[in-house]
Amino acid sequence: MTPVALPDTDEHQYILTLSCQDTTGIVARISAFIQELGGWIVEADYFTDAHSGWFFTRQAVRASSISISFEELQERFAAIADSIGEHVEWRLYDNAHRKKAVILVSKEGHCLHDLLGRVAQNDYPMEVAAVIGNHENLRPIAEAHGIDFHYIPFPKDAVGKRKAFDKVAAIVNAHEPDAIVLARFMQILPADLCEMWAGRAINIHHSFLPSFMGARPYHQAYQRGVKLIGATCHYATSDLDDGPIIEQDVIRISHKDTPADMQRIGRDAEQQVLARGLRFHLEDRVLVHGNHTVILV
Amino acid sequence: MTPVALPDTDEHQYILTLSCQDTTGIVARISAFIQELGGWIVEADYFTDAHSGWFFTRQAVRASSISISFEELQERFAAIADSIGEHVEWRLYDNAHRKKAVILVSKEGHCLHDLLGRVAQNDYPMEVAAVIGNHENLRPIAEAHGIDFHYIPFPKDAVGKRKAFDKVAAIVNAHEPDAIVLARFMQILPADLCEMWAGRAINIHHSFLPSFMGARPYHQAYQRGVKLIGATCHYATSDLDDGPIIEQDVIRISHKDTPADMQRIGRDAEQQVLARGLRFHLEDRVLVHGNHTVILV
Amino acid sequence: MTPVALPDTDEHQYILTLSCQDTTGIVARISAFIQELGGWIVEADYFTDAHSGWFFTRQAVRASSISISFEELQERFAAIADSIGEHVEWRLYDNAHRKKAVILVSKEGHCLHDLLGRVAQNDYPMEVAAVIGNHENLRPIAEAHGIDFHYIPFPKDAVGKRKAFDKVAAIVNAHEPDAIVLARFMQILPADLCEMWAGRAINIHHSFLPSFMGARPYHQAYQRGVKLIGATCHYATSDLDDGPIIEQDVIRISHKDTPADMQRIGRDAEQQVLARGLRFHLEDRVLVHGNHTVILV
Amino acid sequence: MTPVALPDTDEHQYILTLSCQDTTGIVARISAFIQELGGWIVEADYFTDAHSGWFFTRQAVRASSISISFEELQERFAAIADSIGEHVEWRLYDNAHRKKAVILVSKEGHCLHDLLGRVAQNDYPMEVAAVIGNHENLRPIAEAHGIDFHYIPFPKDAVGKRKAFDKVAAIVNAHEPDAIVLARFMQILPADLCEMWAGRAINIHHSFLPSFMGARPYHQAYQRGVKLIGATCHYATSDLDDGPIIEQDVIRISHKDTPADMQRIGRDAEQQVLARGLRFHLEDRVLVHGNHTVILV
Repeated sequence: MTPVALPDTDEHQYILTLSCQDTTGIVARISAFIQELGGWIVEADYFTDAHSGWFFTRQAVRASSISISFEELQERFAAIADSIGEHVEWRLYDNAHRKKAVILVSKEGHCLHDLLGRVAQNDYPMEVAAVIGNHENLRPIAEAHGIDFHYIPFPKDAVGKRKAFDKVAAIVNAHEPDAIVLARFMQILPADLCEMWAGRAINIHHSFLPSFMGARPYHQAYQRGVKLIGATCHYATSDLDDGPIIEQDVIRISHKDTPADMQRIGRDAEQQVLARGLRFHLEDRVLVHGNHTVILV
Repeated sequence: MTPVALPDTDEHQYILTLSCQDTTGIVARISAFIQELGGWIVEADYFTDAHSGWFFTRQAVRASSISISFEELQERFAAIADSIGEHVEWRLYDNAHRKKAVILVSKEGHCLHDLLGRVAQNDYPMEVAAVIGNHENLRPIAEAHGIDFHYIPFPKDAVGKRKAFDKVAAIVNAHEPDAIVLARFMQILPADLCEMWAGRAINIHHSFLPSFMGARPYHQAYQRGVKLIGATCHYATSDLDDGPIIEQDVIRISHKDTPADMQRIGRDAEQQVLARGLRFHLEDRVLVHGNHTVILV
Repeated sequence: MTPVALPDTDEHQYILTLSCQDTTGIVARISAFIQELGGWIVEADYFTDAHSGWFFTRQAVRASSISISFEELQERFAAIADSIGEHVEWRLYDNAHRKKAVILVSKEGHCLHDLLGRVAQNDYPMEVAAVIGNHENLRPIAEAHGIDFHYIPFPKDAVGKRKAFDKVAAIVNAHEPDAIVLARFMQILPADLCEMWAGRAINIHHSFLPSFMGARPYHQAYQRGVKLIGATCHYATSDLDDGPIIEQDVIRISHKDTPADMQRIGRDAEQQVLARGLRFHLEDRVLVHGNHTVILV
Repeated sequence: MTPVALPDTDEHQYILTLSCQDTTGIVARISAFIQELGGWIVEADYFTDAHSGWFFTRQAVRASSISISFEELQERFAAIADSIGEHVEWRLYDNAHRKKAVILVSKEGHCLHDLLGRVAQNDYPMEVAAVIGNHENLRPIAEAHGIDFHYIPFPKDAVGKRKAFDKVAAIVNAHEPDAIVLARFMQILPADLCEMWAGRAINIHHSFLPSFMGARPYHQAYQRGVKLIGATCHYATSDLDDGPIIEQDVIRISHKDTPADMQRIGRDAEQQVLARGLRFHLEDRVLVHGNHTVILV
């Protein structure tokens, strides 16, 4: 589909993220560096975690205000980062380079419909490289959006499942994606893939974690008689449903709602929470420290 | 697309809605009637508006518990309704008959993506008879869902516009739809069409009405410096943005958000509010009295 | 304090609640009975739980429309209830009789301030018979509202604690309250008191249950890195934090919030959720079935 | 009442706020200045409004990390501010100095109960210097909190009203408060008082502005049939209900709710929104530009 021409909110920016042990003068050093280059900071967030003593920042600089090349910027900043201390984690990202995602689905399509709709609407900082499904039924919607759909059936036996995962991994890795989106994929990612895709594999779980981890969370919620159901977007780790949480939300239900009603109602939370969490990730707004996320918005 | 097989939450029901001047004994009369037929009431809502003295009810009866035909049920109930008083408005609806909608769109596709996704997910009590657009760009998504797309360009001059509306009306009326959905259609419905489609034409306005009626509500919201933006689903009437409100919701914004950001953020409210409001309509849960709606959920 | 004269929303009503095994004709029987007496139903809610096959109703009848006395009404309805079947639980309640509560507090006063404020505002269907605290600090606020404050210190040893609970129970029982409100009382109610006060003891837990049961839920929430914190109003049972849930809500937090921040922010959820849940209870809107609540609003 | 001993979240900080025409190097200059003094920045927010070209910052520095006195800090920073440009507005605030408020009330006490409860709970960065009421009924609650209550009746005639306002102003001004809180005061502040107290007079309006400005907003809301009601905390200006908005929120209602119900339900929004907005003000988190507020949290 031809994207709609929308008001261009995305100016060309270089995005810097950095985290390290907190100490005085970090902000001064970074801002002096940017000022020397004539850089115009359009967004700047800082956070110091008093508990861990860790410092986090995200800064967006207008690209047109920087006269040197992006590569030279990266080189020069490396020296600044080194001067700040050890174990400084940082990244510079040119938002002219659109982030790439591979989306993994099963039968349920609400998250896929939603994400592809946003991309088609020119509303989402993402290019979808491929959709991989363990059922065929979502092929038409992917292809209507001009995106390759790969059907990889998942047998029930462990050996067959592992082979299927290897095929998935091969397709995913061929694209070198910035995000591997588990859009209600319903298959538990093996530990080695979690590790290989650490910080890039993003899952949507259909409960307000840590409540109702594991299978059939809406049935668990019904059993307990809760008055709100939720969804949680988190990085996938080898501890099932226990990775760093990026975003969560809830929806009110009532005693009238059966588990099947909750499934239907909960989908709205799932797609909204995934869309918001994934956007934070794509815009380099998520810094992970241990099992916590710092979201710089 | 093949619909996903989901848990069937939709049992076969006959839905009765009725509104009239309140008096004692209405509930008794209706429930005695249903009991005589052996009817099993699975959902029953009553509401008396103390201000207007008006009574409203919606009752869902398990179809399998009623031995007479739907037609006979209608005939017999007519006598009951007559006995209750004058000006009794009532309707009996067989939910085995799926409601039909025609969706009108302009360029922005988020509401269309969302609604078609819900239908494809087998998640929504609606069949989409046609999509009518005054731009071509949403044709592929409609057709991917196997739905006819009619492109009717809208010229800027009054005569051309009127002709375009006549073409729209011809297509709409050919389907005798239960709902005419203005899914960000961006054209003001002429008074005669509002009247012809009274109680069936459903609009989504991109503000929390009555704030920011008319054009460019997000720009108005930005100007006023509000901290929440919203969306309103309402029946279209000849008073622009002033018809009976079915559903509303809001989303938090901040000083960082430009009008363009609000447009993007607000879409989430628009599609959620339209989907919820339209579902109430399709499930015969909305009773209108004057400019108020009674939503029996 | 002299209560403010507010618009009187509380008309004189008789409230009927009933629950039993579902069958056809229950609604017909009840409404025929009310009609015979000339009763004017101003609010009526019905719910059938398809899972358990249980039926629930709450009906509010205008007292002035019933010519017989409340006592006679109760007697006559008993025969109707018997005719419906076995194990029918029902209650008739005259809202001219204001419900009585005893409030148990520890050091933190936000829920107490809030509840007493509502009562003083003539805004809440409750009379506070007494406040019992295991610290002295909230005495002045209770007494400013003209309410007796009983200071009962809780020693750390089991024997002393039990004696303290006996004193609490003596004061509570002397008032025969409709609600025993654990307004952040911080002491675990012994099983025998839970049983004695079953369906009347209402607790506010400072988490979105079932997440973070037990002690220091905000510290648990911080540890897990959740993005929303919550509160849960539930009936106290001998299973700690596991009784039937009446009401819940959440508040958004961020990575900036320490456990101490969460304590402060969470208080807003605690007092709102307690006030809403307790109101449902006082207005006879809560019907309990197993570990579920049906809230008829 | 003896304040409860709570975890001390309030470390001793110097808070700097500054706004001016945006240009490169502001952040660098400020952070270099703080670094030279060895200052430890614990919170830093920046915002550039692309529309107006205006820059806003709020920075919190650990007081113990600064070796010079607060007075010297102010003097030295004045030179930095001058060097940044003309029309630079800035303020340095020592949070060891607790902010002072005078609260104006009418008959309804929910906001007063709430605010005094928060202060008693040691939970709110505010000292209440006095409560002024145009009715007597809230005297006991103020005095229970050890706060002076001034009763100033407001006659209906213009001359009498003006005299009453003069008495209010005399009491208010004697305290030189940081905030004059119109906690449902129900009297329209004269233009000269709005001007005298510009940026310090904070009102809570019982609607989601700009909907339902002026008198009886809940009746207006009922008339329009909205599905959510709201509250707005804003700076009082001589344009009634049109000052810069600090905070807003909404609560869901239904067709069942009369204007009297809305008044009751809306109080929860009013007190929460006022408490949040006023806290932003007291913590120097609100920067005003034209009719917009920038809230640096």
